[in-house]
Amino acid sequence: MYTVCVRDHMMIAHSFSGAVFGPAQRMHGATYVVDVEFRRRELDENGIVVDIGRAGELLREILGAMNYRNLDEEADFRGRNTTTEFLARTVFERLAQSIHEGQLGASARAVESLRVTLRESHVAWASFEGEISAQ
Amino acid sequence: MYTVCVRDHMMIAHSFSGAVFGPAQRMHGATYVVDVEFRRRELDENGIVVDIGRAGELLREILGAMNYRNLDEEADFRGRNTTTEFLARTVFERLAQSIHEGQLGASARAVESLRVTLRESHVAWASFEGEISAQ
Amino acid sequence: MYTVCVRDHMMIAHSFSGAVFGPAQRMHGATYVVDVEFRRRELDENGIVVDIGRAGELLREILGAMNYRNLDEEADFRGRNTTTEFLARTVFERLAQSIHEGQLGASARAVESLRVTLRESHVAWASFEGEISAQ
Amino acid sequence: MYTVCVRDHMMIAHSFSGAVFGPAQRMHGATYVVDVEFRRRELDENGIVVDIGRAGELLREILGAMNYRNLDEEADFRGRNTTTEFLARTVFERLAQSIHEGQLGASARAVESLRVTLRESHVAWASFEGEISAQ
Amino acid sequence: MYTVCVRDHMMIAHSFSGAVFGPAQRMHGATYVVDVEFRRRELDENGIVVDIGRAGELLREILGAMNYRNLDEEADFRGRNTTTEFLARTVFERLAQSIHEGQLGASARAVESLRVTLRESHVAWASFEGEISAQ
Amino acid sequence: MYTVCVRDHMMIAHSFSGAVFGPAQRMHGATYVVDVEFRRRELDENGIVVDIGRAGELLREILGAMNYRNLDEEADFRGRNTTTEFLARTVFERLAQSIHEGQLGASARAVESLRVTLRESHVAWASFEGEISAQ
Repeated sequence: MYTVCVRDHMMIAHSFSGAVFGPAQRMHGATYVVDVEFRRRELDENGIVVDIGRAGELLREILGAMNYRNLDEEADFRGRNTTTEFLARTVFERLAQSIHEGQLGASARAVESLRVTLRESHVAWASFEGEISAQ
Repeated sequence: MYTVCVRDHMMIAHSFSGAVFGPAQRMHGATYVVDVEFRRRELDENGIVVDIGRAGELLREILGAMNYRNLDEEADFRGRNTTTEFLARTVFERLAQSIHEGQLGASARAVESLRVTLRESHVAWASFEGEISAQ
Repeated sequence: MYTVCVRDHMMIAHSFSGAVFGPAQRMHGATYVVDVEFRRRELDENGIVVDIGRAGELLREILGAMNYRNLDEEADFRGRNTTTEFLARTVFERLAQSIHEGQLGASARAVESLRVTLRESHVAWASFEGEISAQ
Repeated sequence: MYTVCVRDHMMIAHSFSGAVFGPAQRMHGATYVVDVEFRRRELDENGIVVDIGRAGELLREILGAMNYRNLDEEADFRGRNTTTEFLARTVFERLAQSIHEGQLGASARAVESLRVTLRESHVAWASFEGEISAQ
Repeated sequence: MYTVCVRDHMMIAHSFSGAVFGPAQRMHGATYVVDVEFRRRELDENGIVVDIGRAGELLREILGAMNYRNLDEEADFRGRNTTTEFLARTVFERLAQSIHEGQLGASARAVESLRVTLRESHVAWASFEGEISAQ
Repeated sequence: MYTVCVRDHMMIAHSFSGAVFGPAQRMHGATYVVDVEFRRRELDENGIVVDIGRAGELLREILGAMNYRNLDEEADFRGRNTTTEFLARTVFERLAQSIHEGQLGASARAVESLRVTLRESHVAWASFEGEISAQ
């Protein structure tokens, strides 16, 4: 299995609901350094998993919709705890949808699975991984 | 699959038995930077894999039992080579037992597997991963 | 010259005033991974620069006063842009004051200078360094 | 499952064919920081996955055949795009062959799979992983 | 003293002249992860050292003139060993010239010194630092 | 000012004397990832600060005299606390002596200062820096 990974980041504000979160129930924020792994069984005719340039641009676009924002005020996240693990899945779903729509080109439809990791500090991170419907 | 990872470290002395270890047969030591990954299929009702605060405290407690010690003199390791891979499994077993006993709360019993990685230098690490009996 | 460095982090929300900040004028946030370097010319009688345990606790205490907070609402920062470089100086001043008051012990008064670095992502950081009045 | 990982690096020149590569069609180069993960279900009688010293030497030998070279002029790569993912597989195949031939000793034949990761910058990496025929 | 640092990278091919370079006399290449530190005594009226967005763009532009190139064929480097330390100075000189010309704005003319670091692998880096003529 | 840095590591056991060290008074150990920075004002005729290959070998030789050892039993350290900052100076002194004796070649005598950093974990490090008598 081949994997290619690209990295970018976003800086957001949010707060959490639930006693389990302790002081993180207050408005605070995070830098998320985001790694996206694209996986497929065989390389395409150029010898690549995905066009790494387009993959980086797509990641930037998806993070751009959340970057420099207070996630508590975003319609998509109303009433949700935007935990690191939840956001990992959000980025996963948006990437999968974009690949499905062809934003990384026809060849990228052979990507079988993605793993999205959000590093929130030097001592903690979360990820979501799953298969994507090739179509 | 969701993963959450927390990091801590311990500093120990030990020696190894067996010609394969060369100079590491002498008394020496290591800093192990320890990453523990907790994995489960669905988030709990708070939108998390585990309570990251409690997970960090549990890891600190488990490493605390080995930290600043000469492992050659610990009863649990008598006659064993406390290699990086062996210690990764030791931390895994102790974490699995603690989760089973409820130290991370009822919700954490949905954690399906753990991966424990010990980084011994900038050029080498070892890990042990496995399922844990939910029960 | 000897240096000892300890690391911790904080997660905050804030917004900036001024066209130069572009989208960072909106409410957003950051994880700051904070490194504090303590410098002195000679080691003390124990062979150390500072008691690394106490230094870590002091850093945690100072970051704790900002951690999980919206800095726009903190009285100390009213009307200020809490940029990474500004916050580096804030941490510097508070550490210098604590050392002066003896919170790291009498020996730590021999520390001549500090450097405080705040890493805001994998591609950007800021620091403030200066001498501290021994006295 | 146990994993042991060793790290080394190589510095090569190459160029790519295909419009998808944009400016990387020109002669350029890369430092690849290479991580090799060795995986097996049980430790050997010494309590290890592989002899980490020999594993490191083998990796150095395999990278040495490419290090400080222009890959466009290497017979093995004639007419191929030596992309990061392609080179990850190349290192994988050469390691698997060497293990099969016994270069890591008899015990290392119990290694079930390998993962080879080439980090090309602070924001991109690729890997190839697969089972190796124990035999 | 305040410092702000931004990071980017470039991927180049080159070869060296001189027995001291051993196998690096052959055509090979490198990824240079480049950190630029901007230093000044006081923050500007916005509370910053430089506009980090413009600083990142300027760095990208300067590295872009070398990125994905064989430095042996660049007129500027004819007959020179483009060692890591030499390239650190090259980036320094070009940045200093750009700041002098106002590309980072009028306020950035208060920057007193720069440090440019090129990381060529996980085990080696080089830097050049110096004052820049404010003017 | 030019700087070149090389990295290696050592794994040692030791114990400390003095109540300030708390649990570190027990026999324990550490991995020290060691960075050595060589600084000089002008490059030599090859365009380098030092021969990075020879610098790496010298560092390996100096660390080799401590690696895989219990420092409490080394004659050189009898009755001393081999703290991270103390060991940073030890490596500094041995490197300076070797450069003085010509082990890095005649050109390396132009190196003006060294900085030796020992990273003991992901959250703590110490260094010693100083001028070296050229001549």
